[in-house]
Amino acid sequence: VEKPAGSEGLSADNPYANDPPRSPILIPSSRAPFNAEPPALLLAENFLTPNDLFYIRNHLPVPDIDPRKYSLEVQGSQKTAVLDLSGLRKGFKKKSVAAVVMCAGNRRSEMVRIKSVKGLNWGAAAIGNANWAGATLNDVLKHSGIDLEGTEKKHLVFEGMDKGPEGSVYGASIPIEMARSLKDEIVIAYEMNGEPIPRDHGYPVRVIIPGIVGARQVKWLNKIYLSDEESECHWQRRDYKGFNSSIDWHNVDFDSSVAIMQLPVISAICDPPEGTELEEGSDEVTLRGYAWSGGGRGIVRVDVSADGGKTWQNAELKPNGQSPYRAWAWTLWEATIPIPEGKAGDVELVCKAVDVSYNVQPDSVEGIWNLRGVLSNAWHRIKVTVPPSSG
Amino acid sequence: VEKPAGSEGLSADNPYANDPPRSPILIPSSRAPFNAEPPALLLAENFLTPNDLFYIRNHLPVPDIDPRKYSLEVQGSQKTAVLDLSGLRKGFKKKSVAAVVMCAGNRRSEMVRIKSVKGLNWGAAAIGNANWAGATLNDVLKHSGIDLEGTEKKHLVFEGMDKGPEGSVYGASIPIEMARSLKDEIVIAYEMNGEPIPRDHGYPVRVIIPGIVGARQVKWLNKIYLSDEESECHWQRRDYKGFNSSIDWHNVDFDSSVAIMQLPVISAICDPPEGTELEEGSDEVTLRGYAWSGGGRGIVRVDVSADGGKTWQNAELKPNGQSPYRAWAWTLWEATIPIPEGKAGDVELVCKAVDVSYNVQPDSVEGIWNLRGVLSNAWHRIKVTVPPSSG
Ligand SMILES: [Mo]
Ligand SMILES: [Mo]
Repeated sequence: VEKPAGSEGLSADNPYANDPPRSPILIPSSRAPFNAEPPALLLAENFLTPNDLFYIRNHLPVPDIDPRKYSLEVQGSQKTAVLDLSGLRKGFKKKSVAAVVMCAGNRRSEMVRIKSVKGLNWGAAAIGNANWAGATLNDVLKHSGIDLEGTEKKHLVFEGMDKGPEGSVYGASIPIEMARSLKDEIVIAYEMNGEPIPRDHGYPVRVIIPGIVGARQVKWLNKIYLSDEESECHWQRRDYKGFNSSIDWHNVDFDSSVAIMQLPVISAICDPPEGTELEEGSDEVTLRGYAWSGGGRGIVRVDVSADGGKTWQNAELKPNGQSPYRAWAWTLWEATIPIPEGKAGDVELVCKAVDVSYNVQPDSVEGIWNLRGVLSNAWHRIKVTVPPSSG
Repeated sequence: VEKPAGSEGLSADNPYANDPPRSPILIPSSRAPFNAEPPALLLAENFLTPNDLFYIRNHLPVPDIDPRKYSLEVQGSQKTAVLDLSGLRKGFKKKSVAAVVMCAGNRRSEMVRIKSVKGLNWGAAAIGNANWAGATLNDVLKHSGIDLEGTEKKHLVFEGMDKGPEGSVYGASIPIEMARSLKDEIVIAYEMNGEPIPRDHGYPVRVIIPGIVGARQVKWLNKIYLSDEESECHWQRRDYKGFNSSIDWHNVDFDSSVAIMQLPVISAICDPPEGTELEEGSDEVTLRGYAWSGGGRGIVRVDVSADGGKTWQNAELKPNGQSPYRAWAWTLWEATIPIPEGKAGDVELVCKAVDVSYNVQPDSVEGIWNLRGVLSNAWHRIKVTVPPSSG
């Protein structure tokens, strides 16, 4: 970890000047706010992504919170409960959940190749899998006198401590029925992989909502409350929604689409990296990568191809200890496949995953292109080259 | 309803001779066992598919059950509870659920065009949506002394009264965690759209498990029990599983794949039917159809195209009163789209749906082809013709 990568050349009154130091291994997609992903190759190495390799997605400057002064407000209709960090740590049973957090824009760079989109140019590593620990939403709401089962309110809202230039705060909400069904699995988290959550990931407290998009898993958590309305935050109402490929900025109506929550099935080849030159005369190649689906849907199959998708072979799925309908963590996989004869030169490697609901990834990026470049889960295709054997 | 369609030319000792009468509107895909679907056009007319238009999927001869002698055995570890029909009707609160039942092989005929598969040649109408009523699984299990929450068993098994020539009975099972999460929505049903369930659909009692494949929703329900093992039935272990397109009968290993439960997102154009000749000089066309996804995932968007998928328009979704994460019923939709200029002649109409988890249908049949022709949920494409205006 080195000097703050986001702070280079920033003056002290720049709101990003106080951003934390970051690992130089991360590949930035923007500096202020700071956004970065690790080399995808490293993701396939660890079931739990190390904290300093976990992709960083900030919408605003990173708050610098004194843990002794931190408090979480939980607003009920009658009263507001205030919890400090030590109250969260000591007042509730500690719950751990191994869960993926993924940016809606992961793999966006593949959409950009079709037609330009608005958003950070993410590769395939705007995703990570960590072990999150904290108090359950259910325990915190009960303690605060909020009746999740009985309420007539339709949304559970989360607000962060990160603020935009005009004072607007980051926020998000989830449908009340999602809060109910996940109440014992949503974690008001203060640990990431056994350590305090790093500043970039929400220190001291963020919410982890397994199976859904990262954008709703509010960092630097400030408030939780019930509401008749969705969060009014820009990123809930005017962003992170899907549209068909004929909708562009001249005809988009954000109110016509639903906020992204559970994500669709996705996978990616992490190893070998795009453009790798394999060993001279290689007649097979070993692929490694990840696969995951939203909504707790476990991965049941990953297919790989070394001929651009004409023929397929099952990858070996590494056991992850997850239950098939509550699989919040990803599945890492590996496959060694023959390179088709006479294919010296360019070889197209492809992977696609299937979840327990037999949802599959779409074949092409064209069919799912959208103006914000989100939900980019087509078959993952990379090119490698095989120099002909000189023997 | 006319003379038994399945019984034509069958002698009295033929096991199918006693099959029930069927509507002549149904289009059979096999006679013995009897399997049939309605013209797809009719599906788009009714949110609740009328009983005599509901597709019929029989694996074996249809049992002829005297309702006064009917009994359901619910086997616990200590004792077996026996429920008769009047006990089911009067002893428990009546629960109604509007839910799709779909055959895993719906739209199989599109796979056959790529490469032959084993299975009935279904069009796009091996699906229906009905209002099912009966006792909840939870109530029946509680009454019978089965502790769904506490059990260590891994599967809940259902057995039918339909028997094969060697005496083997139809059966299926679901993972115990699915039984738990759906315990108040799984219905031990004795009514279909307000009437006794017709013989072809399981008279007098079948199980309805919303959001999953028809094959597990055992008809003529005879027994329910917990087990350490999946149902040993052929259709659970050696059929109704997905494989990649490079697996065929010479290299298939049924043990390597998981039994189909929740189905992936699907849609179809019901109107106009394939091959329709539109009005001379038509400059637009109205499409109607259905969309649905397994696991209770509501439909959030249906895209339609009149240029084979180059440009898309949102269809209008007809409100169905379902909650987005417990949407067991289908969504009917309608769209009027311009026919691209200069397109007189053949026009390719396409639809594709998106569910609340932003799962999409795959672009091509090639990518999902499998030896049994199940899970055929690619973009639905039909051809219509537009004679040029003679004016
Ligand atoms: Mo994101
Ligand atoms: Mo089926």
